[in-house]
Amino acid sequence: MNPQHSVGIVTPQVAHFDAPLKLACGRELTNYDLVYETYGELNEQRSNAVLICHALSGNHHAAGYHSADDKKPGWWDECIGPGKPIDTTHFFVVCLNNLGGCHGSTGPSSINPATGKPWGSDFPPLRTRDWVHSQARLADYLGIECWAAVIGGSLGGMQAMRWSLEFPQRIRHCVVIAAALKLSAQNIAFNEVARQAIESDPDFVDGNYLERSTMPARGLALARMIGHITYLSDDAMANKFGRDLRSGSLDRGEVSNAEFQVQSYLRHQGSQFSGNFDANTYILMTRALDYFDLALEYDNDPVVAFQHAKCSFLVMSFSTDWRFSPERSREIVNALIAADRPVTYAEIEAKEGHDAFLMPIPRYLDVFHAYMLRVRGEN
Amino acid sequence: MNPQHSVGIVTPQVAHFDAPLKLACGRELTNYDLVYETYGELNEQRSNAVLICHALSGNHHAAGYHSADDKKPGWWDECIGPGKPIDTTHFFVVCLNNLGGCHGSTGPSSINPATGKPWGSDFPPLRTRDWVHSQARLADYLGIECWAAVIGGSLGGMQAMRWSLEFPQRIRHCVVIAAALKLSAQNIAFNEVARQAIESDPDFVDGNYLERSTMPARGLALARMIGHITYLSDDAMANKFGRDLRSGSLDRGEVSNAEFQVQSYLRHQGSQFSGNFDANTYILMTRALDYFDLALEYDNDPVVAFQHAKCSFLVMSFSTDWRFSPERSREIVNALIAADRPVTYAEIEAKEGHDAFLMPIPRYLDVFHAYMLRVRGEN
Repeated sequence: MNPQHSVGIVTPQVAHFDAPLKLACGRELTNYDLVYETYGELNEQRSNAVLICHALSGNHHAAGYHSADDKKPGWWDECIGPGKPIDTTHFFVVCLNNLGGCHGSTGPSSINPATGKPWGSDFPPLRTRDWVHSQARLADYLGIECWAAVIGGSLGGMQAMRWSLEFPQRIRHCVVIAAALKLSAQNIAFNEVARQAIESDPDFVDGNYLERSTMPARGLALARMIGHITYLSDDAMANKFGRDLRSGSLDRGEVSNAEFQVQSYLRHQGSQFSGNFDANTYILMTRALDYFDLALEYDNDPVVAFQHAKCSFLVMSFSTDWRFSPERSREIVNALIAADRPVTYAEIEAKEGHDAFLMPIPRYLDVFHAYMLRVRGEN
Repeated sequence: MNPQHSVGIVTPQVAHFDAPLKLACGRELTNYDLVYETYGELNEQRSNAVLICHALSGNHHAAGYHSADDKKPGWWDECIGPGKPIDTTHFFVVCLNNLGGCHGSTGPSSINPATGKPWGSDFPPLRTRDWVHSQARLADYLGIECWAAVIGGSLGGMQAMRWSLEFPQRIRHCVVIAAALKLSAQNIAFNEVARQAIESDPDFVDGNYLERSTMPARGLALARMIGHITYLSDDAMANKFGRDLRSGSLDRGEVSNAEFQVQSYLRHQGSQFSGNFDANTYILMTRALDYFDLALEYDNDPVVAFQHAKCSFLVMSFSTDWRFSPERSREIVNALIAADRPVTYAEIEAKEGHDAFLMPIPRYLDVFHAYMLRVRGEN
C-alpha cells in the first residue's frame, strides 16, 4: 500500500431503501440494500460527485484498501486516487455494488422477505436501467442532484450510457470505456455457454443451491474461464504464456505429463473466482448484458436515443479488445456525432485486450486524466 | 442425394493391423483397427491415391451417403466427388477414422485386450505423428507406395504437414487448409476449458464412464458449444442470428422469457454432438492439437523442418478465421519459401470463419480445383 497515490483505507457503507423499486420486468423490490464506498470529499456545491459503475464481476470496492495488511487494492485503483485520472483530491467518488450483486447489495443470495429463504433463481431479472434507477436513489440518499460524471468500463459503460438517457438532467459527463451499444451474437454465445456451464452443474439445483448448502463451483469456474479468455487478446496470451510448459515435456515419451502454463493459470482463475462469487449473480449479470440494447425503444436508432442526452461524452476503446472492439465504440461515437452531442474519442493501442481498461496504460491514463481535468474545470 | 455430383452410396471398411505400433508417448498398441472409406478407383500405376485427414470431430465418412434414404452426405462432400476439387473420376480417395477416434477405429471406447474392459482414459495419448504412422500402415495395406496428395483442413492440415516430414518419399503434394505450425496460447486455452467442462462433469468418472454405463453428456455438450463459437466468425454469427429472438420479447415486463436464436442453436449443437461423440476421444484429439508443434524437434525452426520435405504445397486460409487465422498460414508459407519448397498460397475472402473450409465458397473451390488439376496432370 502506497499512501501517496492511494485513497488509503476505506470502509464500505450500506444504504437501506424502503420505497419499492419498480423493475423493468414488471416486478418490484419492496426494499433493498446497496453497499457502496466513497473516496474524496463532496464539495459544498455538491458538484464534484462522480459515479463509478462496475462491470460483470465488479463490486463497490473500486479503490484503496480495506485494512493496513490488505495486499490487493480495489479493482480500479489504477484510475482512482490522488493524482490519478479520477483524482480524489478534487472529486467525490461513489462506487456501489449493483443490485443483484453478491458483495453486500441485495441480490440472489439475500433473504427473500416473502419466504424467509434465499432468493436464489427467484430473484427478479434485472436490466441495465434498473441499476441506473437504483443508482439514482443512491444519489438522492447522498444528496447528489447531478453527477459531474458517470463513468464505467464494459457493462459499466453501458450503465453510463443508460444514465445519459434516463436522467439527462442529472449527469454532466458520461465516460464510456470498452463498451458497445448492444452485444453481438458472438458475445451472447459466450455468455450462454457460461450460463450453461453453471446451470448444468448438478450442484446448481435450479439455482436453489444455498438452501441445499451446496455450490455450483465447477460450473462457475468454467464460466469464469470462458469469460477470462475473452478478456485477453490473443497477443496478450501469447506474451504472457506462449506455449510455455508448467510441468512435463513435449519430448517423445513424456507427452502425457505436459501441462501448459495457460492451463494452470485458467484453472487457478476459475477456482479462485468460484469461491468468491455467486452463481445466480453471474447469470443475472450476463443476462443484463445480453438484453442491453441502448436504442431498442428509440426506434432501434442510437442517434434518436442520444438526442435525449444532454451531457458530454468521452468514449475510449482498445485496439486488441475483441470482446467489445473499437468498431463497437466507433458506432457509439458516430451516433453521438449524428445526434449533435459533444464527444471525445480515443482508440488506445494496447496489447491487453478487453482487460486493458483496468491496466495502467500510459496513453489511456493520459487521455482519461486530460478529460477529467475538463470535468473538474466546470465544477 | 444428387447422384450426378455425388460418389453415391459408400460402405465403410475395416482394416485390422496385428503388428504393434510404437507410439510417440513410448507405449505401443499391440493391434488395432482402422475404419476407412474409399471413393473412385485406384489406377494401374497406383499413382492417383489421395489421403484425406480429418479434423477434431471428423471421421472416415467424408463423402457420399451410407444408404439411399441417408439425408446427410459425408462431412466434405462439397469438395469430394465427380467434378469437384477432389474429383473422384480421376482420384482414388481414402479417408479413415483416426486412431483414438470413436467411429469404428480403435480408441478409448474400444476394449483394452489386456483388461477386457473399455480403454477409457487409459488409452495412450496420441500425437499427430502417431496418426501419420498409422495412416502409412493403411497405405501399405492398400498397396499405395506414394500418395498423389495428402489433404486436410485444421487438425487435418497438421497431419498433412507432418506427412511431408515423416514420409517425404511417399507424398507428392501436401494440401494444408486453415491450419497452423502450432497452437497459440488462446487456442490451447479454449481446448483446456473444453476439457475441463468434460472432466468436471460428475458423469465423466475419471474417464471410465463406459464401465459405469454413464456418459458425461453435459460436459461434452459444453465442450462442443465452446468449440463451435470458435469455428464461426463474429460476422458469420451476426449474419446467421444477429440478436433475433427465438421466444419471448425484450419489451418491459417480458424480459425473463426472452431467448436469442443463437442460444437455442448452441444448445442444439451441443446436445446433438454429445449423443454422437466420445468424451475421451474429444480429450485425446484436443491434446494432440495442443501438443502439435511442427518444428519442435527441428531446432524450433520451421524452415529447417520443411527442408526435409520433398513435395509441393498448397496452403489456403480464410479471411475471418480467427481460430487459425491467415497470419498462421502465412507463417507456413514463409517457412516453405525459405526452405525452397514449391508452394501455392491462397487467402480466401470468406465470412464463415474457420468453418469456411467445409463450405462451398466459389473462389475456394476454384483454387482447390485448379491445384488438383495440376496434381492430376502428373499422374
